[in-house]
Amino acid sequence: MDQHVDKQADVFFMRLESEFSVGEIAMIEFKNEFENSVAEPYGMNWSLHTDDIVPRMALFVSKYNHCLYDLLSRHDSGELNVDIPFIVSNHRDLQSIAEQFSIPFYHIPITKETRAEAETRQLQLLEENRIDFVVLARYMQIVSSRIIDEYPNKIINIHHSFLPAFAGAKPYHAAFNRGVKIIGATCHYVTAALDAGPIIEQDVTTVSHTHTIKDFIAKGRDLEKIVLARGVQLHLRRKTMVYNNKTVIFS
Amino acid sequence: MDQHVDKQADVFFMRLESEFSVGEIAMIEFKNEFENSVAEPYGMNWSLHTDDIVPRMALFVSKYNHCLYDLLSRHDSGELNVDIPFIVSNHRDLQSIAEQFSIPFYHIPITKETRAEAETRQLQLLEENRIDFVVLARYMQIVSSRIIDEYPNKIINIHHSFLPAFAGAKPYHAAFNRGVKIIGATCHYVTAALDAGPIIEQDVTTVSHTHTIKDFIAKGRDLEKIVLARGVQLHLRRKTMVYNNKTVIFS
Amino acid sequence: MDQHVDKQADVFFMRLESEFSVGEIAMIEFKNEFENSVAEPYGMNWSLHTDDIVPRMALFVSKYNHCLYDLLSRHDSGELNVDIPFIVSNHRDLQSIAEQFSIPFYHIPITKETRAEAETRQLQLLEENRIDFVVLARYMQIVSSRIIDEYPNKIINIHHSFLPAFAGAKPYHAAFNRGVKIIGATCHYVTAALDAGPIIEQDVTTVSHTHTIKDFIAKGRDLEKIVLARGVQLHLRRKTMVYNNKTVIFS
Amino acid sequence: MDQHVDKQADVFFMRLESEFSVGEIAMIEFKNEFENSVAEPYGMNWSLHTDDIVPRMALFVSKYNHCLYDLLSRHDSGELNVDIPFIVSNHRDLQSIAEQFSIPFYHIPITKETRAEAETRQLQLLEENRIDFVVLARYMQIVSSRIIDEYPNKIINIHHSFLPAFAGAKPYHAAFNRGVKIIGATCHYVTAALDAGPIIEQDVTTVSHTHTIKDFIAKGRDLEKIVLARGVQLHLRRKTMVYNNKTVIFS
Repeated sequence: MDQHVDKQADVFFMRLESEFSVGEIAMIEFKNEFENSVAEPYGMNWSLHTDDIVPRMALFVSKYNHCLYDLLSRHDSGELNVDIPFIVSNHRDLQSIAEQFSIPFYHIPITKETRAEAETRQLQLLEENRIDFVVLARYMQIVSSRIIDEYPNKIINIHHSFLPAFAGAKPYHAAFNRGVKIIGATCHYVTAALDAGPIIEQDVTTVSHTHTIKDFIAKGRDLEKIVLARGVQLHLRRKTMVYNNKTVIFS
Repeated sequence: MDQHVDKQADVFFMRLESEFSVGEIAMIEFKNEFENSVAEPYGMNWSLHTDDIVPRMALFVSKYNHCLYDLLSRHDSGELNVDIPFIVSNHRDLQSIAEQFSIPFYHIPITKETRAEAETRQLQLLEENRIDFVVLARYMQIVSSRIIDEYPNKIINIHHSFLPAFAGAKPYHAAFNRGVKIIGATCHYVTAALDAGPIIEQDVTTVSHTHTIKDFIAKGRDLEKIVLARGVQLHLRRKTMVYNNKTVIFS
Repeated sequence: MDQHVDKQADVFFMRLESEFSVGEIAMIEFKNEFENSVAEPYGMNWSLHTDDIVPRMALFVSKYNHCLYDLLSRHDSGELNVDIPFIVSNHRDLQSIAEQFSIPFYHIPITKETRAEAETRQLQLLEENRIDFVVLARYMQIVSSRIIDEYPNKIINIHHSFLPAFAGAKPYHAAFNRGVKIIGATCHYVTAALDAGPIIEQDVTTVSHTHTIKDFIAKGRDLEKIVLARGVQLHLRRKTMVYNNKTVIFS
Repeated sequence: MDQHVDKQADVFFMRLESEFSVGEIAMIEFKNEFENSVAEPYGMNWSLHTDDIVPRMALFVSKYNHCLYDLLSRHDSGELNVDIPFIVSNHRDLQSIAEQFSIPFYHIPITKETRAEAETRQLQLLEENRIDFVVLARYMQIVSSRIIDEYPNKIINIHHSFLPAFAGAKPYHAAFNRGVKIIGATCHYVTAALDAGPIIEQDVTTVSHTHTIKDFIAKGRDLEKIVLARGVQLHLRRKTMVYNNKTVIFS
């Protein structure tokens, strides 16, 4: 059991992980009973999850392969307790990786003209495959509010900077030009405001004047992979709670 | 010997540290000879320093004592090869620490009306004491360009955030409100643009939802001390070179 | 509230921090009631502490000043909620620091012949001053079991290596000779086995071939200070629990 | 150009990286000239390498897939300038990964009885494929001196602890039992002494009482991958020099 009290916001958080030996019916009964006699009277937001139902994750990618490789190889080695019904990309570059791992790959190109249509197709795929959450593994397109609204706090992005520094495009170039001595990566839930959603996980690595932008990018790749994988794992284990555009991350 | 080439800016940097046994006159002759036959023909910016001349550092503080304590105790234990002719503050709070370490303390209060006069007094102290460089050890006043222009790349500040994130006032509050998972500190040379000078050193520490703003401040104190001390040490050992608002930090 | 279950050892841990408005008598009543109706029937080890009773810490030092300075300046700035009735040392080197901070200093030299006598004097001081716990702030003598037995899990040491690597004397020299790329410091409770007690806190910093043993020592000083201060703080806030020569450190 | 002087050992190190536009013949002439007129008279150990000759790396693995996946995906994305003629394993578990990446896979099982024969086969493969260096990507067998002698400072291993702590088998179990707060990984050149060769790279990550041995192993996997990849990259870029069982790692 983990608890947290935010005194400023006056909210109480609790996460309880338990081992039970009960059938499905007892579970439903417990849920009803708890809802009626505890949760409702005390005005709780609550949810109950069982380990036997494996969450379903969709992957959105573009051209960079490192985060995709990393997530798929973790999945392959049993590290991530998740199903991956499909991968979507606006480019064909990573199709062969999807094939390596035998995961269906949908190529949905996006242009100004086809954006609305592409989003409709994406939403359709998400729905048909009963997707629980989406991971943008270096997906280089902005996700519209049409999709965000359907999956609130259920779209996870990896941004290649230490947010709020260097939000937006080309953060490694911006970091290089500013002459920082440390670069970072941030895993966050996607909201309508670009790169401003609740932060799940961050990490950094040192750089120096000897590093070129290319070196920043190479060092950053390792950060991005690890930080995204940690964020996905935290989400999968239901250790994240979101409120006031911030997260509580239970240990 | 350390070298660096910035191919974009087309600049070559070199730092050479050597042991010599020569008298003062031979040193002057070498300097002249090198200037005339090497440095000038090749258009170098260069300087020559000998270890026997101890640099003179002025400390500017306000009310926070941790960076002051830390620098003075490092100085006391022989870690910093520097003279500290005086400490200046716009408050009296830290006078007793100056006395503990037997360093002259000047109280120069600053109000809107007395600012110009106070700066004149500060400049006078710097000059009279033949100060080589100034360290703002959590000095809570903006240093005017009058002083900056006299000491270009010779005023070192510690900012309590991971720049460029959270520049300006109250960075811990801003970091807390944004819900970041890592906070930082940045040691940089002071320029006319606030918190935007060349970065010498940065470091970070992890935080979580369990930390209050007060915790951020306490954790940050340790960062600030260490990052400032490292920056001062790098400057003292002449391992920093500044160009294009960035630094080359030799190892 | 924080909980931990060690399934291997089959032990349940809990730490509960609460705000009450009760008088002293109610506290005593609560304690008795809880002991009789909960703790005893369930076989708990438990204790109850109130914030208004400030713990009393004795400092043992030798010749190195950095950890002493650091702890005293933290105490001075209100960071550590503790009383420091005295400092003991087997040398006179740090007496002036004790005086700077107006803390009684006892010089108890230790030789082979006087060891037993010195320990008797130390124990006497600890008792007379109703000391709750002892911090060895780079105390360069082995503490005998006579003292350890009186203060089980109440003597905190800082060892200047990443234990269990480089236990014993001269860890920086050993680290240098092994050519490691990272050095560390470890804060632990003192037990009869040298440098083998329950670990409270550890941290590391990077080194390279460019660093001499002197550099290792200088870099290590910063680590030692921080790691010891963190360990002391965790102990003070009663966030440490010890069992099986390990610690549970609540967040 | 990078230099290092080890004053204790009285050795001078230098690494010079340059861009030339010369033909192969000029290169050979330069080499001869430098050898005769500079290197030999001054008693230098030296070597000259050109970027157009891609080094050839053999991978030895057993059952764990994470380091293999990681190296192959880095190779695939162009991050490692190396040829990988084959993968050897004493088990069949990772054969499918070799096939995913279209790299020849040799299954050479090892038992007490077949060890000598297996090593002969390994040596034969190394020779036939003109292998420059070997990477043990979590290869769970001891490499005999027969092979080490043929490839001095050319066999790179990843050990899953912060050496010299927890050398030998089951380091995560040992770390868990000791109750450390940080675990690590070490990339080193293989010598006849187990886990005692020159260290190329190390890194660590924090753990706590909440982590099980299984968690240690999972967290360690990420460390191992990164630390091994960094070590391989440093070796590939010829930034490592070995002497006195230590390394100089140029930046």
